[in-house]
Amino acid sequence: MNSATSQHNSKQDNSSQHNSKRGPVVGVFDSGFGGLTVLRALLPRIPAANYVYLGDTARLPYGAKSQATIARYAVESARFLEDRGCEYLVIACNTATALALEDIRQAVSVPVLGVIEPGARAAKRTVAEPGGDVLVLATAATVQSHAYREACAAVGLRATEVACPLLVPLVEEGWTNHPVTREVLRIYLSQALAKCAPQAVLLGCTHYPLIADAIEQTLRELGSDAVVIDSAEATAEAAEAALTSTIAVSMPASSATFECFATDSVEKFQRLGSLFLRRPIGQVHHLDLGG
Amino acid sequence: MNSATSQHNSKQDNSSQHNSKRGPVVGVFDSGFGGLTVLRALLPRIPAANYVYLGDTARLPYGAKSQATIARYAVESARFLEDRGCEYLVIACNTATALALEDIRQAVSVPVLGVIEPGARAAKRTVAEPGGDVLVLATAATVQSHAYREACAAVGLRATEVACPLLVPLVEEGWTNHPVTREVLRIYLSQALAKCAPQAVLLGCTHYPLIADAIEQTLRELGSDAVVIDSAEATAEAAEAALTSTIAVSMPASSATFECFATDSVEKFQRLGSLFLRRPIGQVHHLDLGG
Repeated sequence: MNSATSQHNSKQDNSSQHNSKRGPVVGVFDSGFGGLTVLRALLPRIPAANYVYLGDTARLPYGAKSQATIARYAVESARFLEDRGCEYLVIACNTATALALEDIRQAVSVPVLGVIEPGARAAKRTVAEPGGDVLVLATAATVQSHAYREACAAVGLRATEVACPLLVPLVEEGWTNHPVTREVLRIYLSQALAKCAPQAVLLGCTHYPLIADAIEQTLRELGSDAVVIDSAEATAEAAEAALTSTIAVSMPASSATFECFATDSVEKFQRLGSLFLRRPIGQVHHLDLGG
Repeated sequence: MNSATSQHNSKQDNSSQHNSKRGPVVGVFDSGFGGLTVLRALLPRIPAANYVYLGDTARLPYGAKSQATIARYAVESARFLEDRGCEYLVIACNTATALALEDIRQAVSVPVLGVIEPGARAAKRTVAEPGGDVLVLATAATVQSHAYREACAAVGLRATEVACPLLVPLVEEGWTNHPVTREVLRIYLSQALAKCAPQAVLLGCTHYPLIADAIEQTLRELGSDAVVIDSAEATAEAAEAALTSTIAVSMPASSATFECFATDSVEKFQRLGSLFLRRPIGQVHHLDLGG
């Protein structure tokens, strides 16, 4: 059905690929292009790593799908990355992290990092008082899972989660600096600020860093001085800490390599992906996950 | 893998189900909920029919996917409907019609109607002069396929196709009568009217009938008197004509029945689908197409 299944017995071989001459193989998974903002944050932080990025673009967006469907898709994708030789997985997708992180961890034998816990911990460092308010902007599925609320509660923060379904389409339309996007942000954020007085605003979707400036500006216009926290940056930082401690290798001084897999059109991935990664993407491999 | 495959030999049995005591079994397929606007138009026109609606909600939206992926999904769905006993299929999805109608026709043995040709023919009846201009509003994939341009050319009309990626998310956000939606329409339509002077505007996406009034109003504000044509209505009319001529049965005077299948959450289908169908949806069956 997919190459993950057919190569499932090659796990042991893959780990032997990792030696002192090359950096760790890090898998980065997202339903689409948004996770490339996490890869972009990873590249300068862990320059010795070799990255394998998988965008499950044939089945995106995950944001409006049910938990069972999202978990099935995410597990298939994670298994592919493990079978591809990845020694560490970053789930660079808020929806998949919110709804399928435990399923993924049970399905693979390598360490798995999601984007939500690092985001919550970064918020904790920003919010001065205990019990301080955090505003989380995310997709409908992420909000409904309350994964951010739980992760924030675990570090002593009170989170208000607000679904912003129009922001992904606006970013994908290329309207990152557009009056309509600012108007939509004014509507979403003024509704949110009526419910809470946040000290930090967590971007709980990997598309949102592309409009982080507009979000910050709109907050200021609405009288809020909340700090905007990018989960992509926070996740890259956590991955760096984890990799240098859990994978006991001396990082070689080579520069990072990455290869990309997409389940839908590779041309579209090259074109749109470059906007998220902010550098050209060379060859993209097509992958059929049977969906 | 799916029930279509396992029941593939039951085709002959299904056709024998059709007798003078019950109306034809009509399959209506869409990637999601939008096709329910076509079912809504069909119900009063062919009240004797028994409808089976399939929304491939686990894999929506089709609009941004590649031709190969869309064709595979649409063929799987059409086969399921044929195996379910449908004697006539309506592809109530512009993207699937644009990119997969021929694949579907080759894969099943019952007549298949798409939404594009009926839309073009309805435009033809509206546009007075030969070679008149038609503006088609649709998703990116439908526009890129140029299926509307070809269907319009076949009836002697010149079509300008414009992608409106934000309209589906705005409808799904429930902003059908909202300043932001009107502003987005002003942007899309003023760009379109700079390219052509249409006598008819074809709604080439089954979500758009829900904002038909806002589209008409914006056209008037921009100085256009173009007639807005709903492909859903045009398709229901074509299905009625085809069914009364190709399926030679006297329609019984019973009222229509319909049953719904969804590949993702049945609860969400019941809730959102009722908005599109404008009547309550009872039981929704879950269907796993292996995706």
